[in-house]
Amino acid sequence: MVKIGIVGLGRLGKRHAENLVYRVSGCQVTAACSIVEEELAYAKDVLGVSDTYTDYADMLANADIDAVFLVTSTSLHAEQILAGLAADKHVFCEKPLAINVEDCEKVVSAAAQYNHKIATIGLVRRFDPSYMEAKRLVDAGKIGQPILVRSQTVDLDDFAEFQVPFTATSGGFVHDMWVHDFDLARWFLGSDMTEAYSIGGCYRHKGFEQYNDADNASALCKYANGTNAYFFASRTAQHGHDTRTEIVGTEGILKIGEIPNATRVEIFDRAGARQECVQDFFARFEEAFLIEAQAFVDACNGKEVALCTLEDAMNATKDAVMVTEAYKTGTLVKA
Amino acid sequence: MVKIGIVGLGRLGKRHAENLVYRVSGCQVTAACSIVEEELAYAKDVLGVSDTYTDYADMLANADIDAVFLVTSTSLHAEQILAGLAADKHVFCEKPLAINVEDCEKVVSAAAQYNHKIATIGLVRRFDPSYMEAKRLVDAGKIGQPILVRSQTVDLDDFAEFQVPFTATSGGFVHDMWVHDFDLARWFLGSDMTEAYSIGGCYRHKGFEQYNDADNASALCKYANGTNAYFFASRTAQHGHDTRTEIVGTEGILKIGEIPNATRVEIFDRAGARQECVQDFFARFEEAFLIEAQAFVDACNGKEVALCTLEDAMNATKDAVMVTEAYKTGTLVKA
Amino acid sequence: MVKIGIVGLGRLGKRHAENLVYRVSGCQVTAACSIVEEELAYAKDVLGVSDTYTDYADMLANADIDAVFLVTSTSLHAEQILAGLAADKHVFCEKPLAINVEDCEKVVSAAAQYNHKIATIGLVRRFDPSYMEAKRLVDAGKIGQPILVRSQTVDLDDFAEFQVPFTATSGGFVHDMWVHDFDLARWFLGSDMTEAYSIGGCYRHKGFEQYNDADNASALCKYANGTNAYFFASRTAQHGHDTRTEIVGTEGILKIGEIPNATRVEIFDRAGARQECVQDFFARFEEAFLIEAQAFVDACNGKEVALCTLEDAMNATKDAVMVTEAYKTGTLVKA
Amino acid sequence: MVKIGIVGLGRLGKRHAENLVYRVSGCQVTAACSIVEEELAYAKDVLGVSDTYTDYADMLANADIDAVFLVTSTSLHAEQILAGLAADKHVFCEKPLAINVEDCEKVVSAAAQYNHKIATIGLVRRFDPSYMEAKRLVDAGKIGQPILVRSQTVDLDDFAEFQVPFTATSGGFVHDMWVHDFDLARWFLGSDMTEAYSIGGCYRHKGFEQYNDADNASALCKYANGTNAYFFASRTAQHGHDTRTEIVGTEGILKIGEIPNATRVEIFDRAGARQECVQDFFARFEEAFLIEAQAFVDACNGKEVALCTLEDAMNATKDAVMVTEAYKTGTLVKA
Repeated sequence: MVKIGIVGLGRLGKRHAENLVYRVSGCQVTAACSIVEEELAYAKDVLGVSDTYTDYADMLANADIDAVFLVTSTSLHAEQILAGLAADKHVFCEKPLAINVEDCEKVVSAAAQYNHKIATIGLVRRFDPSYMEAKRLVDAGKIGQPILVRSQTVDLDDFAEFQVPFTATSGGFVHDMWVHDFDLARWFLGSDMTEAYSIGGCYRHKGFEQYNDADNASALCKYANGTNAYFFASRTAQHGHDTRTEIVGTEGILKIGEIPNATRVEIFDRAGARQECVQDFFARFEEAFLIEAQAFVDACNGKEVALCTLEDAMNATKDAVMVTEAYKTGTLVKA
Repeated sequence: MVKIGIVGLGRLGKRHAENLVYRVSGCQVTAACSIVEEELAYAKDVLGVSDTYTDYADMLANADIDAVFLVTSTSLHAEQILAGLAADKHVFCEKPLAINVEDCEKVVSAAAQYNHKIATIGLVRRFDPSYMEAKRLVDAGKIGQPILVRSQTVDLDDFAEFQVPFTATSGGFVHDMWVHDFDLARWFLGSDMTEAYSIGGCYRHKGFEQYNDADNASALCKYANGTNAYFFASRTAQHGHDTRTEIVGTEGILKIGEIPNATRVEIFDRAGARQECVQDFFARFEEAFLIEAQAFVDACNGKEVALCTLEDAMNATKDAVMVTEAYKTGTLVKA
Repeated sequence: MVKIGIVGLGRLGKRHAENLVYRVSGCQVTAACSIVEEELAYAKDVLGVSDTYTDYADMLANADIDAVFLVTSTSLHAEQILAGLAADKHVFCEKPLAINVEDCEKVVSAAAQYNHKIATIGLVRRFDPSYMEAKRLVDAGKIGQPILVRSQTVDLDDFAEFQVPFTATSGGFVHDMWVHDFDLARWFLGSDMTEAYSIGGCYRHKGFEQYNDADNASALCKYANGTNAYFFASRTAQHGHDTRTEIVGTEGILKIGEIPNATRVEIFDRAGARQECVQDFFARFEEAFLIEAQAFVDACNGKEVALCTLEDAMNATKDAVMVTEAYKTGTLVKA
Repeated sequence: MVKIGIVGLGRLGKRHAENLVYRVSGCQVTAACSIVEEELAYAKDVLGVSDTYTDYADMLANADIDAVFLVTSTSLHAEQILAGLAADKHVFCEKPLAINVEDCEKVVSAAAQYNHKIATIGLVRRFDPSYMEAKRLVDAGKIGQPILVRSQTVDLDDFAEFQVPFTATSGGFVHDMWVHDFDLARWFLGSDMTEAYSIGGCYRHKGFEQYNDADNASALCKYANGTNAYFFASRTAQHGHDTRTEIVGTEGILKIGEIPNATRVEIFDRAGARQECVQDFFARFEEAFLIEAQAFVDACNGKEVALCTLEDAMNATKDAVMVTEAYKTGTLVKA
């Protein structure tokens, strides 16, 4: 039974916490940490976690926990991971590891001495049943050698304006959205990104322009083993959250999530033959978040489980840094 | 080069005529017959057919034609077919052959002496590329033995009120809509309908009630070889014309036309992920009408072509008569 | 925190038990009962439930439990439900309530005095997110008035032979498979079945013939409010478990589960454009089983939750009895 | 009635000829020209065209024709178009106009003096009903402002090896396949390509390497109005010919041809839920070829019809030249 201290109980933090408390087996949430009063009240009243902290170091020092679950600001991830490991805790941290390679390297390097502890970053798509099935098919050779990954993260337009002020610190759409697609591309292609070209613009939400960020953008990238990837990101979808990936292999092609239908219901009415779509990433990856949390807990409990490593997360950040430069300069950037 | 006299140039007649004039090879439309002045003007002005008649017998006697193409009222079909054959013409006639079995039998019996002439009824679905492909798959044994056909004819609600006054003479939804589905069921199951049960009602268009007709109805039927069929008809669809058929076999299942998409375009907007649908049977079976007309002309020109026989049409009417009785009485009717 | 004694740990019992132990919040499995030694070993070793029983009455008398979860043979359901209620326990029981109406009525009548206790039957499809969404759309008037339900339960051929010996006691395909569809039809149509006609046969698995049971069958049924339902059951699908339902309304149509895709992966290879399908009902309704169990526990904990009542289950059995007679006699049966 | 001389009766030429002879109205094929004896025999025996030529100039001088229909080698297009116009004939020519910009400009410039004659290049996708419907939706503002086109031409692997020897003269995959996608991108985006990056490789068919050509490749391109396009070409598909296009707009997204299903038949068997796919571009664009030919004939007959202009074709070639350079050099190429 892993005792977990959860850190950060914002919108996504609450989802993680509810999974850990209600649906994941083999763990207990025994402590919670947040600088937001309402979040600690939620921990007590809704989750029944009475051991709460406003200071992370305080929690590490005093709480009865085996693991920390970090759902905090990206800028805090690196130091909080290391502090957790140093305090002899297993660590789950939301993506991204960091938005610069130096911080990633520092964490990876320092974490090496704690390799008896689990340390993982939440690149959640790897735990989605459809992506897992695609990986199984690829590994089984069903599509021959993968030679091109096309992957996109597309968000509902309604959320765009809300994102504008966060762009300064989030790393922009590349770190925030494509980091998942970069990780998937590596996972399927098994190689390092070596060259990137990226273009796009602010077509609806001019607020992103001040950050040289985009509301729609594409990137085309080369990998060391001669394979390629194309990425698309959009903040302006009208129909819903639309994450999809296509893997072109020498013997077949896989598409994952081509229609982001919310349920198995089809409606036939004056608008034609239609399906309502998932509205946000959590609706799309609800099951993946649960499987991911269960996998982390299982790993803490000593089971052999495939998790995203700190290296995986560092690699995704490396790609994001390179593509960010490509997008911001409009040039062809090489590794 | 088959010289054709077209008879009846209403909405469907015009479509047939334009196919024959512009898109079917091996024929010429050399005469037209109609009791409607506007239709003959259309024949002259649009089709360039100057040899026009208001009397069918007159056309048979005097026009330079090898074949007649009958797109007239159902009540005229039987006698017009026989008159055409008696005048030594090939005959294409729109479905149904007749709405009572006696007339069908009379035609089939009388036609036997003209078997050097082509005589066919336009059960158009047999010429739809998707239905033809399904038939090919079934005949090739791809789904084993067919054991159940589920087939429906569903029309857009907008056309329903217009149909009400025709119900008295058309034979109602069974003869008008299901005759196609009955023909398909026999085609795929290879057996005679022996028992029928049918229920439904007038849920939106009360005008059909006076004829004991329906705007939505189902039938479940048994066939002599132990197989079954389920039929559905609706006049109240909001999304379009929705003809579809499912063939359950012992080794697999085929669905034909599950989504009646108008084109290969998918739209992603506030209504979700959607496809616009075909709005009427002509849009759905446009290609089939052309293939059917070409097949008739090819047959007239001496090619070996599979056509619907008068017997096929008689059988479809037999089924329609039986199911009409089942619907009108609410009882289980046996052949 | 509801303390639950689970009864029956066969294939489905294990699934329920694992949900209750690992994924449902607000409950503990504190006791287990089975006459199968292996199942009690599983309870101890896998679930960590040490308080085990071979006798249900013994468990009711001695275990520290608030509720029983019955996953036993159909023939035991009625008496076990009543014994549980009499022992002041909440009761969840797998469907069907019974395969005769008398037993259902006895339970419903006797249960009336225990209405401070939760008593529910696991008609699991009502808890499937897609069926719930369809119900929400129907209740919101999105398709006008429902006038026809078409619903099917179709199982993979591989499981058919295994089912043969159980047919004598299970009530056959009607009670085993259609009871779900009957419940759905009532749920959507809001009325009582009044007339039924049912046909089919044993097309691949002759072993069912001795029980006058079918491997493929259809039923067409009338409801008191003038609406209709068509049902199909098959034990011979090659592609997977294929439960689907269509609701025809006066203003629109809903389809639920038209393609039983296992994941969101599409494969493009020599077999065309394809999706792999769920192989059994548990794969299709995995999420529904979890939601259902959570709903039961929530209700036990005093929350307002919609559950299937004993009356719902009795009504489904009434329909099943009527349709069984229709199938076995080949006649039109009226309520 | 337009009298047409067809030039070139290879595989595609035969398809065009059969359309013109059997299915297009308002024209007659009165002459045929080919240097291949078998093709002229086909013209006589199958098409019934007795006025045949082995020399194009001879046909222009002596045949009774109003128009020429050129289905010849790309390298002949420019001069044959100009010779046709100079002989006072309308000209239809298969794509591409030429594989270098100079030849295109020469034709466009010289053709200016014959603007009383129709001169068009067969960029056939513009006549596909689905692409036409997409264009209608875009022009009607249904997806707001188009900001990204993603378009691909993907051919069945079986045809790849056959293509290898033609690569030296065809201009390779860019001119042969992407010229269509480039034309579509311009059509939808309404702007000039200004920057291109393209990568790929020979993953299955090493024979293309000697020409620095690819069997799979991607390009990412910028347009003058700030919009973007991504292109993909593949010669290695296992499932069929898979041409599809996606148009991302500020208010919605369109996909055209996402699943290249051959018919409306779906098969459910051991391979899952599947659709067989069109095997070559002609099967996919059969209807478009017919509509295109009819449009040309209608234009010759004086009707107002939208056709692809020589400028459209020149623009597509300009893009192809630029992207070819990008692919062959691996650099970012600017207009």
